Amino acid sequence: MAKAEKYRLAEIVERFGGEVIGNAQTAVSQVATLESAGPQHISFLAQRKYRKQLAGTGAGAVILGRADGELTERPRIVCDNPYLYFAKVSALFNPPQAVKPGVHKTAVVERGTRVPASASVGAGAYVGRGVKFGKAVVIGPGCHVGDGVEIGAGSRLHARVTIYAACRLGQRALVHSGAVIGADGFGIALEDGRWRKIPQIGRVLIGDDVEIGANTCIDRGALDDTVIEDGVKLDNLIQVAHNVRIGAHTAIAGCTGIAGSTRIGKHCMIGGAASIVGHLDIVDRVVILAGAVVTKSILHAGTYGGHPAQDNRSWTHNMARLRQLDAIRERVSKIEQQLSSPEEQA
Amino acid sequence: MAKAEKYRLAEIVERFGGEVIGNAQTAVSQVATLESAGPQHISFLAQRKYRKQLAGTGAGAVILGRADGELTERPRIVCDNPYLYFAKVSALFNPPQAVKPGVHKTAVVERGTRVPASASVGAGAYVGRGVKFGKAVVIGPGCHVGDGVEIGAGSRLHARVTIYAACRLGQRALVHSGAVIGADGFGIALEDGRWRKIPQIGRVLIGDDVEIGANTCIDRGALDDTVIEDGVKLDNLIQVAHNVRIGAHTAIAGCTGIAGSTRIGKHCMIGGAASIVGHLDIVDRVVILAGAVVTKSILHAGTYGGHPAQDNRSWTHNMARLRQLDAIRERVSKIEQQLSSPEEQA
Amino acid sequence: MAKAEKYRLAEIVERFGGEVIGNAQTAVSQVATLESAGPQHISFLAQRKYRKQLAGTGAGAVILGRADGELTERPRIVCDNPYLYFAKVSALFNPPQAVKPGVHKTAVVERGTRVPASASVGAGAYVGRGVKFGKAVVIGPGCHVGDGVEIGAGSRLHARVTIYAACRLGQRALVHSGAVIGADGFGIALEDGRWRKIPQIGRVLIGDDVEIGANTCIDRGALDDTVIEDGVKLDNLIQVAHNVRIGAHTAIAGCTGIAGSTRIGKHCMIGGAASIVGHLDIVDRVVILAGAVVTKSILHAGTYGGHPAQDNRSWTHNMARLRQLDAIRERVSKIEQQLSSPEEQA
Repeated sequence: MAKAEKYRLAEIVERFGGEVIGNAQTAVSQVATLESAGPQHISFLAQRKYRKQLAGTGAGAVILGRADGELTERPRIVCDNPYLYFAKVSALFNPPQAVKPGVHKTAVVERGTRVPASASVGAGAYVGRGVKFGKAVVIGPGCHVGDGVEIGAGSRLHARVTIYAACRLGQRALVHSGAVIGADGFGIALEDGRWRKIPQIGRVLIGDDVEIGANTCIDRGALDDTVIEDGVKLDNLIQVAHNVRIGAHTAIAGCTGIAGSTRIGKHCMIGGAASIVGHLDIVDRVVILAGAVVTKSILHAGTYGGHPAQDNRSWTHNMARLRQLDAIRERVSKIEQQLSSPEEQA
Repeated sequence: MAKAEKYRLAEIVERFGGEVIGNAQTAVSQVATLESAGPQHISFLAQRKYRKQLAGTGAGAVILGRADGELTERPRIVCDNPYLYFAKVSALFNPPQAVKPGVHKTAVVERGTRVPASASVGAGAYVGRGVKFGKAVVIGPGCHVGDGVEIGAGSRLHARVTIYAACRLGQRALVHSGAVIGADGFGIALEDGRWRKIPQIGRVLIGDDVEIGANTCIDRGALDDTVIEDGVKLDNLIQVAHNVRIGAHTAIAGCTGIAGSTRIGKHCMIGGAASIVGHLDIVDRVVILAGAVVTKSILHAGTYGGHPAQDNRSWTHNMARLRQLDAIRERVSKIEQQLSSPEEQA
Repeated sequence: MAKAEKYRLAEIVERFGGEVIGNAQTAVSQVATLESAGPQHISFLAQRKYRKQLAGTGAGAVILGRADGELTERPRIVCDNPYLYFAKVSALFNPPQAVKPGVHKTAVVERGTRVPASASVGAGAYVGRGVKFGKAVVIGPGCHVGDGVEIGAGSRLHARVTIYAACRLGQRALVHSGAVIGADGFGIALEDGRWRKIPQIGRVLIGDDVEIGANTCIDRGALDDTVIEDGVKLDNLIQVAHNVRIGAHTAIAGCTGIAGSTRIGKHCMIGGAASIVGHLDIVDRVVILAGAVVTKSILHAGTYGGHPAQDNRSWTHNMARLRQLDAIRERVSKIEQQLSSPEEQA
């Protein structure tokens, strides 16, 4: 990516806190893993299991938890949360690439839309009528922005994103290629064995600081809106059906599907490839494990997994118990034999 | 969306049947949920569990089942199937947005393709050679329509849809952004540990009145064609592999995957994130629940779920039984103790 | 597709080996299934269960295994591996369609990129700065190729593929529509209940002879690169998270998700809709069945399935055992009765 500036460890702790042990004048210009780091890199140890790699690292400096400060003699920063600290240092070294403002000559902007001078509209992008831009919005090449869409300041659509008419994105949204926001929800009604389409007249409303992964789909509401609250992070290939509400600061990993009208609380973490059926309520601070099939509302914070999803300890316990079934059957057979023999002998 | 016209309840029952109770001159201009409706809205009660919301609704009028006609004093329409009735009223208030015919100046249409005057080809769309259009077809901005494709009258591709060469869509198809129709099926043969590609020379044939969701993929056949019959409704992010056949009026929810050469009957309903392995036969009127992993053909209409998928009652029963295993083991231990004690005492 | 040339069976065995039985001058011009083949077609029998169709086929010739040579009297080629043989014959009859070199007048190529005369860049495609092309590369209409991307000789991107900056594709890559290569990995760190984005500065490195399905996503690495080795075949709608490594000649069916930093060995076969959690190691020659939820590393070659994934025999056995639980419980009840009765009678 872009060439990073150099920073001395002393400068880094001045910005982000923590404490330098060793030469605070050590300068680094990029982050790297313990395994691949060289003298120009700063690396980090966030999990004990990577301690072996710490011993062999060529990193110029390392970020460590307070308890691990003496695990290496290299110049190092000790802090409370080395993973978060690393995230901040990486953001310092790798700021988002600046995009030149301006509307590419091959882009199409319909009448009634004013593109501010601070915005960038890429090659071949299409921007419909009455679209409203905040400051410094980036519309990547080949994007489609429907009529009446609103996009908040500092938001960026990577190449080939689609936003259907009337949807709203907050500030600092980051949307990856192939994402589709605002397609019709799956609303159909049976009439004599045939499906009749129900118009989907709601919108998608997306809060601030939301990231949306590649090829993820968020459908517009049937009547009311589909809502993604502030700070939600969605990975790739996720399906969010109509009228779902995802609470603030919830993170959802790839390939997860959430069916219509389900409400997910704030600060949840949902593993990859989970499926959540429609019309459920999931409270705040729920963790759902990869591959879980959630068929009932979840009313208590905790960790859930399995198919059907349940308190994860139960699931794990149940699946382990299955293996004991043979042993139990044998014990029952033995008892039966024992009980029958005396009678026969009698 | 577009501004809706006003209709009096008397006019609505004239079109769609049912019976007005209360002031038949009440005029409404849009549909809404019970919760968010105002006096200009008509709402509906399709499930008993929303009755509480009926009490508090501000709707100008409500659509109700015949048994529920006295649950409110508001102007109302009673009918046999309030959800279907609502679907019709919503379609009346929200007709598909008209699209201006014409080929956008930035669209590319290859030689040998005649675009009828009734068609619309959006900005940046690409239409290959020998493409055949029915009447009033809409190709959205940024779509790709390969050589020799046929698209029936009244069909609409939203922005950024891809149709590979030689595929056929029937009349009134509705295809959402990011859908890919006709990519190569996953046909490979092993030769000394390496994969050799098998050309995929079949097509995708799609019937009339089919809806295809955002980022859904339907692969072309290996030799014969992949077939989607009339009236099929596919949600988002569905994978339909080569040589699958989906029977008429079957509806499939998001994130479902159907492997190669499987045949699904007519009037089936398949829940989200189901996986169906290849070379199976699934008869008509089968319901498959969300997250089911279908590993065997299904020869009888009914409801199936679980992993592996089975008659859904069995699955639910089995997973519930698992929790009794501990209790059974304890009972066996008790018996063993009881049986052993006398001997020891003897 | 394109009109195929005619070949006599004698010519075919000269190219690919095997032996003709019957008239070696029989000429065929296309492959077809046993069911739909006519006299101009050559068909094949790879699985015994299709023998019935062999009896009724109208094929001009058939490819058969050595043991099956006498199952028909039609002109035929017998060989060791009829499926592989068919693959070769089909490739002979259906060579990839030639694409005319040249940059379409509506394509955008940024400064600093030299497009070789052998390359084709389709309508509306965007090619960034400093992109490097091998010989005879095809960039389909509407593709997005970011700055600094490298694409090896003979590679083809179908319409509307996205490659983010700095990623590399080897030779003879085949990438289908909607695929997104190099979007940001899902790297976030918690700070006081909010997510902070971690810049994703690695790349995606793709070897030679790799095929990537429609709407499949491969994320760039967080620090180091995401790596797809030579000969890997990926179906549609697959999610490959950051820093995953997929070993050479592994094939993965549609809808599968692989979470971050997991390493998959060489020559693996992964069924559709499998989910594999992060930071696992899966050795070479592992088969994972459709719908499996893999939660632990797999250290031995073999076949795995289920949720959680396990040696597939165990999973099948366990799920079957579940059905015996009722019977066992009844036996325990009977024993308890038997044991209690005498006491009561006593």
